[in-house]
Amino acid sequence: MSDLNPTPLDLTLDGGALTARLVDFPSVSGDEQALADAVEAALRGYPHLTVDRHGNNVVARTNLGRAERVVLAGHLDTVPIADNLPSYVDGDRLYGCGTSDMKSGVAVALRLAASLTEPNRDLTYVFYDCEEVEAHRNGLGHLVKDHPDWLAADFAVLMEPTGAMVEGGCQGTLRAQIRLTGVRAHAARSWLGDNAIHHAAEVLTRLETYEARRVEIDGLEYHEGLNAVRIDGGVAGNVIPDECVITINFRYAPDRSEAEAEKHVREVFDGFELTVTDFAAGALPGLAQPAARTFLEATGGRARAKFGWTDVARFSALGVPAVNYGPGEPDLAHKRDEWCSLSAIAETEERLRGWLAG
Amino acid sequence: MSDLNPTPLDLTLDGGALTARLVDFPSVSGDEQALADAVEAALRGYPHLTVDRHGNNVVARTNLGRAERVVLAGHLDTVPIADNLPSYVDGDRLYGCGTSDMKSGVAVALRLAASLTEPNRDLTYVFYDCEEVEAHRNGLGHLVKDHPDWLAADFAVLMEPTGAMVEGGCQGTLRAQIRLTGVRAHAARSWLGDNAIHHAAEVLTRLETYEARRVEIDGLEYHEGLNAVRIDGGVAGNVIPDECVITINFRYAPDRSEAEAEKHVREVFDGFELTVTDFAAGALPGLAQPAARTFLEATGGRARAKFGWTDVARFSALGVPAVNYGPGEPDLAHKRDEWCSLSAIAETEERLRGWLAG
Repeated sequence: MSDLNPTPLDLTLDGGALTARLVDFPSVSGDEQALADAVEAALRGYPHLTVDRHGNNVVARTNLGRAERVVLAGHLDTVPIADNLPSYVDGDRLYGCGTSDMKSGVAVALRLAASLTEPNRDLTYVFYDCEEVEAHRNGLGHLVKDHPDWLAADFAVLMEPTGAMVEGGCQGTLRAQIRLTGVRAHAARSWLGDNAIHHAAEVLTRLETYEARRVEIDGLEYHEGLNAVRIDGGVAGNVIPDECVITINFRYAPDRSEAEAEKHVREVFDGFELTVTDFAAGALPGLAQPAARTFLEATGGRARAKFGWTDVARFSALGVPAVNYGPGEPDLAHKRDEWCSLSAIAETEERLRGWLAG
Repeated sequence: MSDLNPTPLDLTLDGGALTARLVDFPSVSGDEQALADAVEAALRGYPHLTVDRHGNNVVARTNLGRAERVVLAGHLDTVPIADNLPSYVDGDRLYGCGTSDMKSGVAVALRLAASLTEPNRDLTYVFYDCEEVEAHRNGLGHLVKDHPDWLAADFAVLMEPTGAMVEGGCQGTLRAQIRLTGVRAHAARSWLGDNAIHHAAEVLTRLETYEARRVEIDGLEYHEGLNAVRIDGGVAGNVIPDECVITINFRYAPDRSEAEAEKHVREVFDGFELTVTDFAAGALPGLAQPAARTFLEATGGRARAKFGWTDVARFSALGVPAVNYGPGEPDLAHKRDEWCSLSAIAETEERLRGWLAG
């Protein structure tokens, strides 16, 4: 499909037009090389930037010796195309795969990279691959592991679709399995066995009566949740089952560490066999940081907590407070009729430019 | 494997030797025709018997105008052979596939059929196919449906393996599904959903605290049981599930009808959506019948309740009280090292002969 893009990327196009160019440059996860090449080539054309590359991840930065450094980051990949290319404009809407998630955010970052030759804060632009697939393939994760110095900063803005609203931090997620055991027997002589499924009653009662915590951090309200996401038990229609496994998912506010989250879950299910299978730490919103405070003012002062886990947590793990802020519509991500508002693209760029060039 | 049996069945062999001959005549479910042919041919050699055939089911009877008629029945099929043919004798044990379940019982019935020319009760011998497989293939079921008159009697003895102990009646079994519903949501915003798995807490609590009834019928103690045999719920690791299904199995004493059993289960799970999926009525032991009383005395007076569902219920459905009584060892049925006690074969035959020839 590369014939859709015979010419190099022109970063002087307006935000909507540049978004359309990026959208018409297909880059489904795993197939980002051509787009990463184009992004790298375009950025190397600007002498105020130094450019590094690692795999299909491109990092550009200014080196002006400013007191603060800010990261603007976005992923290059999209979910699979669903008959929604090439892009087209209808009124204020640009339709197509990746318009909201998140080539509009990438376009804004690329335009700022090209045009902000003398920003008031040093800037690091990060474009990475494989955000839409398994965590171990995530390009930002590879940069964290192999080149954490490239990501050093005081604050980071991930330009994921937020409807041009600041979303602070993210909640952590922990998955665990609770295993109930019993003794197998023929159902006709059930008293010779011990029914493992029945022992799940107490676990599910604790879940049903669990009161999820709400907590305010940096002015944002987080809302936890503890849920069974799977239950499996049974051997055959005439057998008393000797095992039942409940998978639980704890979504926790970013004021808890991974260890604290695990301790809490173990307390809730005290007396049961519990194995943690899967962990992703949350990220504090960091809105009390100086860079964040001015960012919040520049973007209109509105912010809300982010409940789902996002890549901001990867910055958080490096000690870099991070927020999500982008022009895309979060509810349209991964939808066949995905679109992005052209005015939101322009507004997002204007707000960021006001913050960084003011 | 028919070369194992080049000669016709000789019903004058002693019980152990005849059992060995039958065992060495492979008849895995669906492959009973050769054995049914041999049984039919052997029985047609006795002028005191009239013989009927339906499929691979053979029915022979005396017609002496006695006041009572008794059925002796056994299935011809076995579970698949597991390197346990041909049979061999080790001390008092005859080893091989089907020795206990139930060619020893068939051998006893065939010997009685051949030798009891003037029994004190009219006798009906029933040999049928496909007992070890799906209920709709069961040969006794086909006779119940197509020739119920062939099975008319005052009492029936099914010669399944019972360790030469009378097992009376059988419990019924009812399976049902209880469906819990909720509202799907992303696990990061669980308060927007309604977790169907959590709603299973109340159902499982009722199961865990359920007190199963024990009841004495005709001097035998039945023991009911109500159990979850399967539970399934869950969409994905990050989704609040909107459905959870619990399959329950109620094993009930034969003093409850199917309708009463269903009513009881609906009362226990009042307030929940319950669908009955599967039903098999129980069978009363019928040990108060005159034929049964003398049978019990002749077999030593010991009897116990049968908890599992068995083909006696098919007789019960025709209004014929039925018990299980056979020389095989029930715990060895379907085992690779299946065996039957040669002395139990002789004892069972002697007891039945005493009852029917006395």
